[in-house]
Amino acid sequence: MSELGWIGCGVMGCSMAGKLLEAGHRLRVHTRTRSKARTLLDAGATWVDSPREAADGVDAVFSIVGYPEDVKEIHLGPSGTLSADDAPGFLIDLTTSDPGLAVEIRDRGLERGVVAYDAPVSGGDVGARNGSLSIMVGGDAERFDSIRPWLEPMGGTIVLQGGPGAGQKTKIVNQILVAASMVGACEALRFTEAAGLDPRRVLESVSTGAAGSWTLSNLVPRILDGDYEPGFFVEHFVKDLGIAIRSARSLGLDLPGLEHAESLYRAMEAAGLGRKGTQALDLHLKAASGPS
Amino acid sequence: MSELGWIGCGVMGCSMAGKLLEAGHRLRVHTRTRSKARTLLDAGATWVDSPREAADGVDAVFSIVGYPEDVKEIHLGPSGTLSADDAPGFLIDLTTSDPGLAVEIRDRGLERGVVAYDAPVSGGDVGARNGSLSIMVGGDAERFDSIRPWLEPMGGTIVLQGGPGAGQKTKIVNQILVAASMVGACEALRFTEAAGLDPRRVLESVSTGAAGSWTLSNLVPRILDGDYEPGFFVEHFVKDLGIAIRSARSLGLDLPGLEHAESLYRAMEAAGLGRKGTQALDLHLKAASGPS
Repeated sequence: MSELGWIGCGVMGCSMAGKLLEAGHRLRVHTRTRSKARTLLDAGATWVDSPREAADGVDAVFSIVGYPEDVKEIHLGPSGTLSADDAPGFLIDLTTSDPGLAVEIRDRGLERGVVAYDAPVSGGDVGARNGSLSIMVGGDAERFDSIRPWLEPMGGTIVLQGGPGAGQKTKIVNQILVAASMVGACEALRFTEAAGLDPRRVLESVSTGAAGSWTLSNLVPRILDGDYEPGFFVEHFVKDLGIAIRSARSLGLDLPGLEHAESLYRAMEAAGLGRKGTQALDLHLKAASGPS
Repeated sequence: MSELGWIGCGVMGCSMAGKLLEAGHRLRVHTRTRSKARTLLDAGATWVDSPREAADGVDAVFSIVGYPEDVKEIHLGPSGTLSADDAPGFLIDLTTSDPGLAVEIRDRGLERGVVAYDAPVSGGDVGARNGSLSIMVGGDAERFDSIRPWLEPMGGTIVLQGGPGAGQKTKIVNQILVAASMVGACEALRFTEAAGLDPRRVLESVSTGAAGSWTLSNLVPRILDGDYEPGFFVEHFVKDLGIAIRSARSLGLDLPGLEHAESLYRAMEAAGLGRKGTQALDLHLKAASGPS
């Protein structure tokens, strides 16, 4: 069993770190708001006061936080993991973040003998609780087998996508797909309602054929229950789609579907829905279409 | 076992009618191009020269053809099913067609004592071959149990969605979802390529998490194999999306994702891709983004 550091106890992070504890690893935890680490501490994790302490002498330090700025601060900042006296063996960032930052962390890690991977995940709160996440890894191929055993308790699909940043780029692909799927689902719901169909019965028909998707099976049922709680925060999705748009533009790509989705989610955040789940796009479009 | 009439032997129709033969029903077949009925005739179906003959005295007559105009001609035209001397018991149109036309056929059927259902399907050529289609039915609830045994060999999910036209409206919902999913998948592929990722490896990661969909699991692998053959014809999808747009507008709905998808597919048809499969959107967007 390993000595591991864990930074970040949001909706996803808490469940994922729990899987490492269940697998028998020793875990040091740090997060911005200590109360959010309660479940993990009750389950046997040890609290530490900084990212540096979470990283000091551990086999690997993991992070899953909100924004690229947070990732940068946690790893490269003055109390960051790479400032630990006894550098960790591996640094694995599970945050959906910038591909360029992933490369920077890898390079800065190498200077201290730390092998860093970007490893963003998909599968939502459900996947985090079930340990069935898809984990998209970028980093050095030779050492991948060393980190894989730590990822296995959290993930059902774990794929090395390429060198540093390739995990983040793959996650961008994932979010382009998720955004399209969510916009499609919400337009479909608007039509369902306006046409006077029974949405649960429609879902039964459309979720099993060529229209089927994870969104339809997992998020639309929440919408039909009036449940707009996160799952996955709108404000984090705005961040992800922003990264996607900037990356696409830097590659000279014009992706109008992505642009449309990103503008909708930005408008939702501006309308005060940032702390709702991504399925709250339904609320936003319902409001935009006026009283029914 | 029943005596059934079948009109239409396209990609979907042939496989579906085959399931009824396999289930032991007697089948009369008519289709515009007789050679396309070959497989069914070899399997024991009987050729007839008109929709009227396909319908004459049968327990039920089925149709699955291209366009609403064809549906109208086949059932309401001078040699149509409803002109049969001995009217059929039931008329079941499996074509994706207009909700208003479904109501008209139901009404005209009633005048001749024929109970008509609209019952469009989803699940593609794969679902038709496996008998695992989703069949979305609109029509009278009291007689639904009488037609269900004929649908079961073809469908894995068979749901009565409401009165006449409700099957077509549900299929519109389905196509809104399919269109969004296809546009998302093709934008995701453009990003994958531009970012220098391995598309098969990316697919492995993104098809199992929150981005997962039927499109990703069934059509994107065809794209990666360079296979743009139909499955489902672009020209028929243009028809479906046109019906969706007109229906949405008539309900006062603004669905920009649907509008975008419809304009892309219309442009594809204009560019000569009408007889390709819907996954050829990949070709179209690749061409639009210029030489790589």
